[in-house]
Amino acid sequence: MERAVVRDIIRVEGNQIKEVKDTVVTEYAVTVKINEQEFVTMVCTPEYVEDMVIGYLASERIIRNYDDIEEIWHQEKEGFVHVKTKRVNPYFQQIQNKRYITSCCGMSRQGFVFANDALVAKTMEGIHVRITTDDCFRLMRDMQDLAEIFKQTGGVHNAALCDTNGVLLSRMDIGRHNALDKIYGYCLKNNISIQDKIIVFSGRISSEILLKVSKIGCEIVLSKSAPTELALQLAEQLGITTVGFIRQNTLNIYTHKERIHLPPNELEPPETITPRRN
Amino acid sequence: MERAVVRDIIRVEGNQIKEVKDTVVTEYAVTVKINEQEFVTMVCTPEYVEDMVIGYLASERIIRNYDDIEEIWHQEKEGFVHVKTKRVNPYFQQIQNKRYITSCCGMSRQGFVFANDALVAKTMEGIHVRITTDDCFRLMRDMQDLAEIFKQTGGVHNAALCDTNGVLLSRMDIGRHNALDKIYGYCLKNNISIQDKIIVFSGRISSEILLKVSKIGCEIVLSKSAPTELALQLAEQLGITTVGFIRQNTLNIYTHKERIHLPPNELEPPETITPRRN
Repeated sequence: MERAVVRDIIRVEGNQIKEVKDTVVTEYAVTVKINEQEFVTMVCTPEYVEDMVIGYLASERIIRNYDDIEEIWHQEKEGFVHVKTKRVNPYFQQIQNKRYITSCCGMSRQGFVFANDALVAKTMEGIHVRITTDDCFRLMRDMQDLAEIFKQTGGVHNAALCDTNGVLLSRMDIGRHNALDKIYGYCLKNNISIQDKIIVFSGRISSEILLKVSKIGCEIVLSKSAPTELALQLAEQLGITTVGFIRQNTLNIYTHKERIHLPPNELEPPETITPRRN
Repeated sequence: MERAVVRDIIRVEGNQIKEVKDTVVTEYAVTVKINEQEFVTMVCTPEYVEDMVIGYLASERIIRNYDDIEEIWHQEKEGFVHVKTKRVNPYFQQIQNKRYITSCCGMSRQGFVFANDALVAKTMEGIHVRITTDDCFRLMRDMQDLAEIFKQTGGVHNAALCDTNGVLLSRMDIGRHNALDKIYGYCLKNNISIQDKIIVFSGRISSEILLKVSKIGCEIVLSKSAPTELALQLAEQLGITTVGFIRQNTLNIYTHKERIHLPPNELEPPETITPRRN
């Protein structure tokens, strides 16, 4: 599996709009089995996967040192790393029965992609909101202007719920998921519709973030950062418009561009463009 | 609880070295109990915590809508959010028995901070490596020069194991923890000592990352990004030197500066400086 792939995107640089090839990083889900028992699912870049599992097990003290591993092999295509070990740390069971969510981005919903998420993620039907590229630049600036603590500390992610007039709600958190959850919770409590709004986000669009956007029920996500390939595949399937790398006056449109107003004749050749869904 | 605190740091700007006040973001661990049963521990910025829990439970479909929540209250000091609900999603138990690790930064080790981690994290004793501020700038540049895929895609974190001569090992991953685990696993397999080396990292130094550095057994961590307050408290206790915001020719020294060569008379007043441990 490649650690990055090339895909067609729409690149906006000021008034210039063109189709270009862009390199997007991949996500690989691997499940670690210890003595044939499922232990953990990790989402990673697909290289040095065995080293990662060894390092992880050692830092969690599931193993004490490398010699504790009798065998380790990577079933790459199937997404497993099998570990055979004589010693099992007494914490093993204890850890397995606990569940934590990271400050940064939540546990992997990778497992959920194929189970719970498939039931929960909403496919967006139709177009409830359309924006221009100028809206993208303006909303990103507006969110960043509101993000005072980020400027002070550089340590948090920002998310904002917007309509085309501007920012309606802005939340920050050291956890990327948390910022979105804070927005979603507020909207639920106050019965605010999200479908016709736009989510603006400072962080990377991973598959987990994309699924969160889908579960929340939003059609457009704008980010300052990069998306992953898995996130873009999900965005295509789920009907979500993703725009990334929004900086100054440049941005990349990755999926479902039908919600972004673009001058009709500027894009050539038209036959390479994904057909509009509506 | 404040979402950020002010602390004394050493700021280096070119040849200028001064003690300044710096704002550092906090981390707050909160455990969600559903019908008195422990469900999940989240690490977050301490504001809008109830909204976050509502949003999280809805996006995981533990609740279907806000009305499913009969009562919710935040026991702030103790770090709990209590949720009372009539309906419990059938996935509830299933989710509780699974464990996933995020691509981004792993599950929270917050729980571990107070249990497993306390046993596993190593306190650094003594000084096995010392570096100059010029080393910091150079090693950060070297790591970034090696990080080709980041330049292409903007979607990954980089970590490098270095000595004062340069980069020994460089790994990238969409997950911050994964990049460190890949380095640790390689070193274990090849019996490479880490204590006298330096970890250079592109991402934010959260408590989780700091604990990972400690478990790996490294004394110095250099980052391009910001640390959190909890990470710095742990670094102080565990004897780890943290340097952050390494950009061009500026950086911040947060903890255990005894491993950074500084001109002896430039820092005034000396009585505000933390005493050297060795």
